Amino acid sequence: MGIRIFVTGGTFDKEYDEIGGRLYFKETHVSEMLRLGRCRLQVSVRTLMMVDSLDMTDADRAIVVQNCRQCAETRIVVTHGTDTMVETAAAIARAGLDKTIVLTGAIIPYAFGSSDGLFNLGSALAFAQALPPGVYVAMNGRFFLWDRVTKNKATGEFEGGPQLSG
Amino acid sequence: MGIRIFVTGGTFDKEYDEIGGRLYFKETHVSEMLRLGRCRLQVSVRTLMMVDSLDMTDADRAIVVQNCRQCAETRIVVTHGTDTMVETAAAIARAGLDKTIVLTGAIIPYAFGSSDGLFNLGSALAFAQALPPGVYVAMNGRFFLWDRVTKNKATGEFEGGPQLSG
Amino acid sequence: MGIRIFVTGGTFDKEYDEIGGRLYFKETHVSEMLRLGRCRLQVSVRTLMMVDSLDMTDADRAIVVQNCRQCAETRIVVTHGTDTMVETAAAIARAGLDKTIVLTGAIIPYAFGSSDGLFNLGSALAFAQALPPGVYVAMNGRFFLWDRVTKNKATGEFEGGPQLSG
Amino acid sequence: MGIRIFVTGGTFDKEYDEIGGRLYFKETHVSEMLRLGRCRLQVSVRTLMMVDSLDMTDADRAIVVQNCRQCAETRIVVTHGTDTMVETAAAIARAGLDKTIVLTGAIIPYAFGSSDGLFNLGSALAFAQALPPGVYVAMNGRFFLWDRVTKNKATGEFEGGPQLSG
Repeated sequence: MGIRIFVTGGTFDKEYDEIGGRLYFKETHVSEMLRLGRCRLQVSVRTLMMVDSLDMTDADRAIVVQNCRQCAETRIVVTHGTDTMVETAAAIARAGLDKTIVLTGAIIPYAFGSSDGLFNLGSALAFAQALPPGVYVAMNGRFFLWDRVTKNKATGEFEGGPQLSG
Repeated sequence: MGIRIFVTGGTFDKEYDEIGGRLYFKETHVSEMLRLGRCRLQVSVRTLMMVDSLDMTDADRAIVVQNCRQCAETRIVVTHGTDTMVETAAAIARAGLDKTIVLTGAIIPYAFGSSDGLFNLGSALAFAQALPPGVYVAMNGRFFLWDRVTKNKATGEFEGGPQLSG
Repeated sequence: MGIRIFVTGGTFDKEYDEIGGRLYFKETHVSEMLRLGRCRLQVSVRTLMMVDSLDMTDADRAIVVQNCRQCAETRIVVTHGTDTMVETAAAIARAGLDKTIVLTGAIIPYAFGSSDGLFNLGSALAFAQALPPGVYVAMNGRFFLWDRVTKNKATGEFEGGPQLSG
Repeated sequence: MGIRIFVTGGTFDKEYDEIGGRLYFKETHVSEMLRLGRCRLQVSVRTLMMVDSLDMTDADRAIVVQNCRQCAETRIVVTHGTDTMVETAAAIARAGLDKTIVLTGAIIPYAFGSSDGLFNLGSALAFAQALPPGVYVAMNGRFFLWDRVTKNKATGEFEGGPQLSG
């Protein structure tokens, strides 16, 4: 069947604007990252939006949920800014889909050459293949059920109660 | 409990020798890669050997098997050259351990800045957490049971029959 | 005698703040860049300030001029943000020093892995060795006399009338 | 008039062969490096050969000399393996051309992400613009007259007597 990747933006895909000296969004790097990782999974990538997750609205989240519901795939990865990743995970979970849905992101933009994004993308795709249906956050090499995770704003890391596998 | 990583060398850890202009092994990059990936799993890394997998002997494989057996962890990742990764997986499988053991590697040295290694390490650690006991190869974003996988020498990619999850 | 490098900040040395998701200054990368470039010149590096050149004041410029005057070296490179590099070059020129002083910078932060900074630093150090006394801007592989150069705000490039060498 | 770059191969342009696990030559990275460096010089690049300089023959050197003589430009950069760079510089010098010709190279392949090549290319282009006619080696941030330089095989660095500028 293959895996669906929905792109929503986040640090993952931030670029450096050479003229303005600021960070901005252009296009996603996910396809380039899959190529770099020599990924041979059957994957289809669709960009839903390119936003900082602090700017993500309820309407944006409804679009994410709707796409997770409508796509044929039952294994889904959503790339997302880390600041409100947990909120979006909750919105997806409320839809009660019988699918394995894994949200992931990065704390360093991929374009900056020292990103955790490639590591996280690899782990998210693996979790999407191996975990049972449910909504998860995959960050820092770990996975968390959507309702047992918070982002520690001070450290930038995700923390949670017991993982599914103990 | 945490995850154990055994390092055996392979393309993963090849370095460029500035004076001789050749590739060689120095120390593993696995710890640096975990740091770069902002990995917060409880992981302990042990280097068993640093060899090109074409040079790996039966005695070397016995060391890998012995370490997989003796360590307290039940979830293990083995970094390994791709050329004989499948042979080592078979050797481990014959030991009949009740553990989840995932072999992974890279087709480009991590030190060369464009490696698939970070992607593979992320996926291997995820598979090690989420798959049931067994011996697996994790490459190209996919996972394979040890007895259903071969390396395609022409493309450098791993191919297999049906994956565990279909 | 050797070459003196004065660091003032600029895009050259901007870092990505993982927690806040913004760009900021920490420490200069110049020494790391010299190491990466296997530079074997006798160079001494001194950080005068770490500022965005849009925030550079007349007092800051007076510090730069004063240091150029007082140091023993007669060949000097100044790393500087590109936005007001030409103003600082003019301030140095007004001091009428009998030294070869070359200002350089970058349009992409060095930390972002795709910087023009290493290229510019290499060229600035070369110009500082080979050009006669005067105040120059070295950017985009070219050099410009301080009073014959402007930054094109639209393209981010430096443009000038005839170079010294025609 | 602009600057001519002649490419001859060398460590500069070595690639990693993913299938064979060896180093080899494909195409030059010089144009990509100029783009990365935001170089706005009028430069034309021509590949003469792609060889390890240990394999360079007298016939190869004759080709380099002939091209330096025939091209319209009077400022030339030659990219070259470091092992026999000095021999080629001598061969060019014997031609007695009234041009500024700068040989440069790298000790780490550019493709490996940690190259001194970008730094050296920046400095070589600068020296080619600013030095008087002659044949030079530009490495390690320094420049050397062709008959006052040797490569230290143990350190990989270039060493010389007094530079032109003292």
